[in-house]
Amino acid sequence: MPLKIYTAGPEVFLPNAREIMDKKTALCRQYGFEAICPGDLDIPPSDTKKGFGLAISRVDEEMMDSADAIIANLTPFRGIAADVGTCFELGYMCAQRKLVAAYTNIAECHYERTLAYYGGKITEDADGYKRGPDGLSLEDFEMIDNLMMHGGVERRGGPVVVHAAAADALYTDLTGFEECLKALVILQKEKAAARDEGIRPEELDASNDD
Amino acid sequence: MPLKIYTAGPEVFLPNAREIMDKKTALCRQYGFEAICPGDLDIPPSDTKKGFGLAISRVDEEMMDSADAIIANLTPFRGIAADVGTCFELGYMCAQRKLVAAYTNIAECHYERTLAYYGGKITEDADGYKRGPDGLSLEDFEMIDNLMMHGGVERRGGPVVVHAAAADALYTDLTGFEECLKALVILQKEKAAARDEGIRPEELDASNDD
Repeated sequence: MPLKIYTAGPEVFLPNAREIMDKKTALCRQYGFEAICPGDLDIPPSDTKKGFGLAISRVDEEMMDSADAIIANLTPFRGIAADVGTCFELGYMCAQRKLVAAYTNIAECHYERTLAYYGGKITEDADGYKRGPDGLSLEDFEMIDNLMMHGGVERRGGPVVVHAAAADALYTDLTGFEECLKALVILQKEKAAARDEGIRPEELDASNDD
Repeated sequence: MPLKIYTAGPEVFLPNAREIMDKKTALCRQYGFEAICPGDLDIPPSDTKKGFGLAISRVDEEMMDSADAIIANLTPFRGIAADVGTCFELGYMCAQRKLVAAYTNIAECHYERTLAYYGGKITEDADGYKRGPDGLSLEDFEMIDNLMMHGGVERRGGPVVVHAAAADALYTDLTGFEECLKALVILQKEKAAARDEGIRPEELDASNDD
């Protein structure tokens, strides 16, 4: 059974979303994986706008529940940060102890982008925090985005791939996606080996004692 | 044992973050809950910037693992969307089948904010998708943010509170936070009643069969 990879990213908003999802699906197959793309399934119709949105939310969560891994496209979207839906999905998969991977098509790190957002007008307070003119502090952790995303992936041994795509290929360049696939091939083998060596299930599986 | 609520939101970036967290903690106590605030714990020092970021990521995830519920402040942050770290955390808690609640201090919905982002220059394509000049489609689901966040909370029966705060109290106004607490008091009772009626554990608890 090939590992199922949920392909999260803002490319679902592109006019040629289908084309990009098909390319991701083909790449997954090439590396021995099965792709689960948000938007693959038909969403049941609804009487209201909100009802339709809720239906998509349900289908996407069910897709993630059935997936073994996620590759999250964290390329900044309509601003300086990653697509919030993709961030939700990455958190969702981290909590389930799935295999996680992320890539971005922008070379500037989170701190550099936030610095640019403030036009460089940064001050440092008595505690050493860098702050914008609005008083809000900046994360300066050499990470591609907020520490929960970058940290969530890196702490689980997942790849965080940075690739500077051409401006007109910001959401379509799949170089970083393919690098994630290569890393997942290795991670998958390591996880299988860990199982064979008798690592306790609770170290691999998610559990919740609420 | 009081229910433990993880208080997620961009107020951690405020100069008076400690003051806001203390207020949230006091409000939680007032409603019979215990607050778990990111930033409450001392983060172990690290040799590198990234190492420190990774340490915070670990501590925040451990806090969420130990919490029974989350109240996510989805007020837009440095742009038109919610703080991405908060979105990761909301997804993380949804996946663990915890109690979830969200609020925003901006009255305009996600669609209205995106429309403003594009200066109103929206077109509708042949398939009925509304698109900005960059070709990216807009979600129009009468939701406060991307459907994964709003849907993730509403589908679980959690409150999604909208409160128009004053501009200078965007990240400090706790009206919506308190409304979430009131709703969680009710949800907590419902969940306890469902348990007593013998709802199967797998309908209440998270499990992961990866």
